[in-house]
Amino acid sequence: MSDEKNTRVSMLGLGAMGSVMAAAVIEAGYQTVVWNRTPGKADGLAARGAVAAGSVREAVAADVVIACLYDAASVRETLDPVVEELSGRTLINVTTTSPDQAREIAAWAAGHGIAYLDGGIMAVPAMIGQPGSSILYSGSAAVFEQHRPLLDLWGESVYFGDDAGLASLYDLALLSGMYVMFAGFMHGAAMVAPAGVSAGAFAERASAWIAAMTGSLGGLAAVIDGGDYTIAGQQSLEFSSLDDIVAASAAQGISTEVIDVVQNLIQRQIDAGHGEEAFPRIIESIKHPV
Amino acid sequence: MSDEKNTRVSMLGLGAMGSVMAAAVIEAGYQTVVWNRTPGKADGLAARGAVAAGSVREAVAADVVIACLYDAASVRETLDPVVEELSGRTLINVTTTSPDQAREIAAWAAGHGIAYLDGGIMAVPAMIGQPGSSILYSGSAAVFEQHRPLLDLWGESVYFGDDAGLASLYDLALLSGMYVMFAGFMHGAAMVAPAGVSAGAFAERASAWIAAMTGSLGGLAAVIDGGDYTIAGQQSLEFSSLDDIVAASAAQGISTEVIDVVQNLIQRQIDAGHGEEAFPRIIESIKHPV
Repeated sequence: MSDEKNTRVSMLGLGAMGSVMAAAVIEAGYQTVVWNRTPGKADGLAARGAVAAGSVREAVAADVVIACLYDAASVRETLDPVVEELSGRTLINVTTTSPDQAREIAAWAAGHGIAYLDGGIMAVPAMIGQPGSSILYSGSAAVFEQHRPLLDLWGESVYFGDDAGLASLYDLALLSGMYVMFAGFMHGAAMVAPAGVSAGAFAERASAWIAAMTGSLGGLAAVIDGGDYTIAGQQSLEFSSLDDIVAASAAQGISTEVIDVVQNLIQRQIDAGHGEEAFPRIIESIKHPV
Repeated sequence: MSDEKNTRVSMLGLGAMGSVMAAAVIEAGYQTVVWNRTPGKADGLAARGAVAAGSVREAVAADVVIACLYDAASVRETLDPVVEELSGRTLINVTTTSPDQAREIAAWAAGHGIAYLDGGIMAVPAMIGQPGSSILYSGSAAVFEQHRPLLDLWGESVYFGDDAGLASLYDLALLSGMYVMFAGFMHGAAMVAPAGVSAGAFAERASAWIAAMTGSLGGLAAVIDGGDYTIAGQQSLEFSSLDDIVAASAAQGISTEVIDVVQNLIQRQIDAGHGEEAFPRIIESIKHPV
């Protein structure tokens, strides 16, 4: 641990997420360097003990460089000009990217002798270092192992494997779940709004309900993994028809597109003759696009 | 309470939900009559002390008749032939219906002197009588108040008002949230499946993540109710672009329809010039169909 604490850690990107992550590193007693494209963002962290780097070149002169930037393009735009300085060092990139972009950055890093770990942050800034925060990693196992105490400052650290794209894939899959859940909430809130129900009143009930219903996901998944959608005791696709919801939504004068997409997943399986089979079969509509 | 326990309660419909609800009523010591369209379903409940009615007519000769049937049509098909027997009694209908169907059944009940309360069950059968179960009601306030001890056997009882359609509207809005959340989970599971991740492994992480993210709904709702999407400190629509997720989904060879629908909600607001505004503005895409 004392060796680890002598590690010089640089944080590139001081947006909402980067700032909170940098603060956790400073708090833990690491030598911390911070940099942001637009100046001013480093002041608060400098007051807490970080060194505000005057340039990217200065910032990357560290044992571990963390990139928490806007997107994959900004990672390359920021680091390409200083790649020789970065060579021989360690880069941990927690910027949100696609799996292919993560693999491209990993290939670029490998080509320049940079040890590379890709990360996907499953938390909002306020959750960093708190229970419920997890960061998904893939790429260099050696970097993951060596810097585990650093990584664990931000949340639960989970390693998926050598393929640098895996963490991003998992990250984007989980983000899909979140954004689609948000859209479902918005649809429900839009349904009840004409009846005078505020979004806040609906959220109070919907957040508890949706959270409780995530308890069903393991059971749905077990049916999928079991591979037998005719298994007994499951709600059938026929019974899962969302016609009532679609009709009630239309009657409220709102767009039905959000609920239509789920109904379409169900209907395609019914049309293919699987109406008596279990609801989790809708994943086949997604896995096999028409 | 002793008066209440002398209440004769009938349960029409002994599917997974009706059976569990009837069992709770028997357990609480009510005189309980049970009936199902297809015979045999009543045997287990009769062994626990219920009277298995030989006909619907016999079943509705009760102080409170609970209907937990397949759909709105089956409620009318079941009760129309015995409407004279039902006249002057109380009907609590927890069958899933649309708001308009609930209003039609309420009007039919009113026309025959039947006191009517409509209910929407926000629970799976295993949750009945357990923490987290709630049943939403609207229609006769007198029925709700008089039979509150009975209703409370199944979960938290919530009354929304005289309009018999309100509970169904709320019910369908919450079910929308659930089904759309399920679709988002399925999308994520389909994304990671080609990388060898089982649905079960994904569910373990996704259920915790999505449940945690329901904690954001109150904040999103506050922005909507505040009516100012330019409020500071919110993730912008531009930043919420789901292009990465759409591209990664397509790269996995799966259908992008589930995530496309959310991206479309976002894009329509960006196209209308609101890209710098807060993410919760996507509800405007739903409230104002194109």
